[in-house]
Amino acid sequence: MTVKAVNNYVWIVRDKEESEKGGLLIPGAGREKPHTGLIESIGKMVKDPDIKSGKGKKAIFHKGVGRSILFEEKEYLVLVENEIIGIK
Amino acid sequence: MTVKAVNNYVWIVRDKEESEKGGLLIPGAGREKPHTGLIESIGKMVKDPDIKSGKGKKAIFHKGVGRSILFEEKEYLVLVENEIIGIK
Amino acid sequence: MTVKAVNNYVWIVRDKEESEKGGLLIPGAGREKPHTGLIESIGKMVKDPDIKSGKGKKAIFHKGVGRSILFEEKEYLVLVENEIIGIK
Amino acid sequence: MTVKAVNNYVWIVRDKEESEKGGLLIPGAGREKPHTGLIESIGKMVKDPDIKSGKGKKAIFHKGVGRSILFEEKEYLVLVENEIIGIK
Amino acid sequence: MTVKAVNNYVWIVRDKEESEKGGLLIPGAGREKPHTGLIESIGKMVKDPDIKSGKGKKAIFHKGVGRSILFEEKEYLVLVENEIIGIK
Amino acid sequence: MTVKAVNNYVWIVRDKEESEKGGLLIPGAGREKPHTGLIESIGKMVKDPDIKSGKGKKAIFHKGVGRSILFEEKEYLVLVENEIIGIK
Amino acid sequence: MTVKAVNNYVWIVRDKEESEKGGLLIPGAGREKPHTGLIESIGKMVKDPDIKSGKGKKAIFHKGVGRSILFEEKEYLVLVENEIIGIK
Repeated sequence: MTVKAVNNYVWIVRDKEESEKGGLLIPGAGREKPHTGLIESIGKMVKDPDIKSGKGKKAIFHKGVGRSILFEEKEYLVLVENEIIGIK
Repeated sequence: MTVKAVNNYVWIVRDKEESEKGGLLIPGAGREKPHTGLIESIGKMVKDPDIKSGKGKKAIFHKGVGRSILFEEKEYLVLVENEIIGIK
Repeated sequence: MTVKAVNNYVWIVRDKEESEKGGLLIPGAGREKPHTGLIESIGKMVKDPDIKSGKGKKAIFHKGVGRSILFEEKEYLVLVENEIIGIK
Repeated sequence: MTVKAVNNYVWIVRDKEESEKGGLLIPGAGREKPHTGLIESIGKMVKDPDIKSGKGKKAIFHKGVGRSILFEEKEYLVLVENEIIGIK
Repeated sequence: MTVKAVNNYVWIVRDKEESEKGGLLIPGAGREKPHTGLIESIGKMVKDPDIKSGKGKKAIFHKGVGRSILFEEKEYLVLVENEIIGIK
Repeated sequence: MTVKAVNNYVWIVRDKEESEKGGLLIPGAGREKPHTGLIESIGKMVKDPDIKSGKGKKAIFHKGVGRSILFEEKEYLVLVENEIIGIK
Repeated sequence: MTVKAVNNYVWIVRDKEESEKGGLLIPGAGREKPHTGLIESIGKMVKDPDIKSGKGKKAIFHKGVGRSILFEEKEYLVLVENEIIGIK
């Protein structure tokens, strides 16, 4: 990608929503599956060292955050640093 | 766990709510039992040294804080650093 | 106590409300007796040096502040640093 | 006094309101006599050097600020640092 | 004056409102004559170096700012540092 | 250009909106094409190093941000630093 | 001028609004001609180095900002630093 995120923005390529795998899943109120995506570009004002070095890793974030854009025929989700709750 | 909390987030595995043990308990208005959980992962932007080094310890937090998620078939509570009032 | 306050929280064991001692007391509008309690545990992000070293001292705070909890059969009042107006 | 102010609080013993002395006083709208009191104890987080070293001096503050308390049979006014506009 | 301003307060003795001098004055909407006064005392938390060293100079400020007080038979206007737009 | 942006402002010359090129485009809700423009001048208070050195590069920003001006017969979009989400 | 701006204020002498010169002008919605003026005095708390050294230069600012005053028979516009978007 030739695009470079700036400020404290992180550009993500969303993972396709996976169907829930079988397992221990207990249906219950108030729990949500967070969303995930591949980290493509990281603004230089991002402070968390794990995000700063997270290119190519999976970002985890709550539902409903960020802003979806279509740039040069590809879809991204643009998050601000603080909307990422974990990486994997 | 292969997930890594980022920013000032702390990932917790909630303790099952224990029934109130017998004892000195005086029923009264305005007191609540805080909730607890095992600290699983700690974002690097967390500042409190006792939380930073608190992996595997029990976090104590007021009722109603944080956001429950179901990630890879396991339930977590995601707190921001400041929602933890004590550790044990 | 094996519990450790974190962040800028201070765990207090409230003093029983004392009845007003006799003396110079002039009934008047707008004055309140502040509440007091024994400082049990102090988060490491607390900044005031007198509170930081105040374990076992009496904290003084305005009525209505803090949040009462019942943790392991004991009652505490959890204050944020700034809710303490004096120590003794 | 054995009480110690903490944070950026300043404990004051209010001066009795003096009756207006004779003199140049021109009745007019919008002017108020500020209130005054003796500085008894100063929290260590107070930043202004003149307040920090102001014990025993007279604090000047606008009407209506602070919170009056009755602690150990004595009345105080508890101000935050910034509510003091001058000392004498 | 024996009074000492503290914090970022500046004590001013207002200039009497001068009548508009003759000259280039073009009546127009939206322009106001700012108010002025002599700087009497400057709190040590004031940051602007020209105000810090401005004792005895004329402060210029927009209409309607500050709080007028009558202290020891003399009138002052108490401004916070940022309400001063110029000195002369 | 003889104009110099100041503070954390960035002066941009908007790209003409391109029509969507053919390709993988999947019509969907909530995705927007971000807008772009050529970076002409950068205020010295801008902090992001990629924007600071971005003169002549293409800035990417969400729809609806900034303020369009017409200065010396040329159109600019004036953004604050934080409204830029990427550069290319 | 003997007046000295303080804090982060900048005193400007507005340019007379010029009529639109002929040229490339395309009538369109949402574009405004910014206003301009000569920088007369700069408060010492101004941070942008181009504004700090901008005395005698032309400041550019959006319509509607600042406060017009009439001081000693001369008109000024008093801006806060951040209201200036460019200099020339």
